[in-house]
Amino acid sequence: MPRRDGDDRSVAEKLFAIADAFERGDELTLGEIADRARLPMSTAHRLVGEWVAWGGLVRGDDGRFRVGIKLWRLSVRQPSSRRLRAAAKLYLQDLFDATGEHVHLAVREGLGVVYLERMSGPDAVPSITDVGSRLPLHATGVGQALLAFAPPGVFEDVVAGGLRPYQPGTITDEDELRARMAEVRRVGLATSVEALTKGAFSVAAPVRDATGTVVAAVSIIAHVERRTEPQFALGVRIAGRGISAALGWRP
Amino acid sequence: MPRRDGDDRSVAEKLFAIADAFERGDELTLGEIADRARLPMSTAHRLVGEWVAWGGLVRGDDGRFRVGIKLWRLSVRQPSSRRLRAAAKLYLQDLFDATGEHVHLAVREGLGVVYLERMSGPDAVPSITDVGSRLPLHATGVGQALLAFAPPGVFEDVVAGGLRPYQPGTITDEDELRARMAEVRRVGLATSVEALTKGAFSVAAPVRDATGTVVAAVSIIAHVERRTEPQFALGVRIAGRGISAALGWRP
Repeated sequence: MPRRDGDDRSVAEKLFAIADAFERGDELTLGEIADRARLPMSTAHRLVGEWVAWGGLVRGDDGRFRVGIKLWRLSVRQPSSRRLRAAAKLYLQDLFDATGEHVHLAVREGLGVVYLERMSGPDAVPSITDVGSRLPLHATGVGQALLAFAPPGVFEDVVAGGLRPYQPGTITDEDELRARMAEVRRVGLATSVEALTKGAFSVAAPVRDATGTVVAAVSIIAHVERRTEPQFALGVRIAGRGISAALGWRP
Repeated sequence: MPRRDGDDRSVAEKLFAIADAFERGDELTLGEIADRARLPMSTAHRLVGEWVAWGGLVRGDDGRFRVGIKLWRLSVRQPSSRRLRAAAKLYLQDLFDATGEHVHLAVREGLGVVYLERMSGPDAVPSITDVGSRLPLHATGVGQALLAFAPPGVFEDVVAGGLRPYQPGTITDEDELRARMAEVRRVGLATSVEALTKGAFSVAAPVRDATGTVVAAVSIIAHVERRTEPQFALGVRIAGRGISAALGWRP
């Protein structure tokens, strides 16, 4: 039933719209929150108050609101995520020690890929990925590794969302992406060259849990001129297998 | 206004009660969520559906719900938390390399202390702290370091909540805790011996941001027989100062 103010969102949807206002990691005034969540100030004031009372948002001394540690705490204790990080830790460290390049652990969230862990050395290629950032599936190595093994429908949703070009290497054609996905499934590795970041290539391998479901991907991003060096694909493949084994996967 | 069902919680409070059901990091069935959040199944079903539609909860193949990566992503990009972790990283690594014991970075959340980072070696003393766990302020080194510099009222709230004993070294007396807090402020370090964990001692130092506000604490937890070795207090103190300086604090 539409509300008098013409906003037919539920209370829950309005609450979550407030949380989404913090998507880019900002600290916001009440006015900025109301604006981003498309809420009248009075409603924003009341619902932000509910978030603060619970601890999901915190009001700083400067009057700006930020996301509280509570959300992090709820999510970081989540058992499958803990198991994954614990299983991955030593493999990521080994990959990083061996290459000095960016090493990532990522999971799929809807039509995006979210970076859970990142290790980087001072000489690694410039890269826009960062822990907690969310990037498109079609334009990243980890994204392609996850998309190739995603449930039916995800591929179609990604295509329907538009294959935005970022760099010369971004796949923007549906058929080409479909063929790439088949190749990733066959080879067990996703390699993308200058898909998202100029001067960088990425090689990624899927990580499976005990049921065989692909739950994550591990990758290295390095300077594009190093793309023919064999240790990247080898290291990432072994890391993917090892983390999967630690999660209980038996091929 | 009390509702017909006798539950006078707001929709927001009910939604947050659902999230709180996941406090201990479990994966829950709808029935378990309804039970923990004290909601009728129909309400739980509807509100869990809102959480899932937003991405805050995810339904697994086994029908159990868990916390989605979305909450983690919202919280981990929060700038003050990012700054803190970035500033602390090398200091924590140095402390860990030098001692091989548990090294922690923690922040206060209400009347508890939450562990943001932990580094541990295989020979470290057994300890119940873990990343994302929340422990009482009065019974941990980091908790005491944070409580000593907390805003007025927090101390009284902690005392009112009851000073639960965990080990022989837990401070359970209000006057003794008050005196300890004054000592922590004077010395700039909090040392607790077998307060929470048998066989372990903890030494913690506050971390200040550019405004001088104590925003975190850094600590080492080690075997109690090592408590007189000078490098722990020294290392933690220097780490606390260094992280503060990296956050812009100038004494």
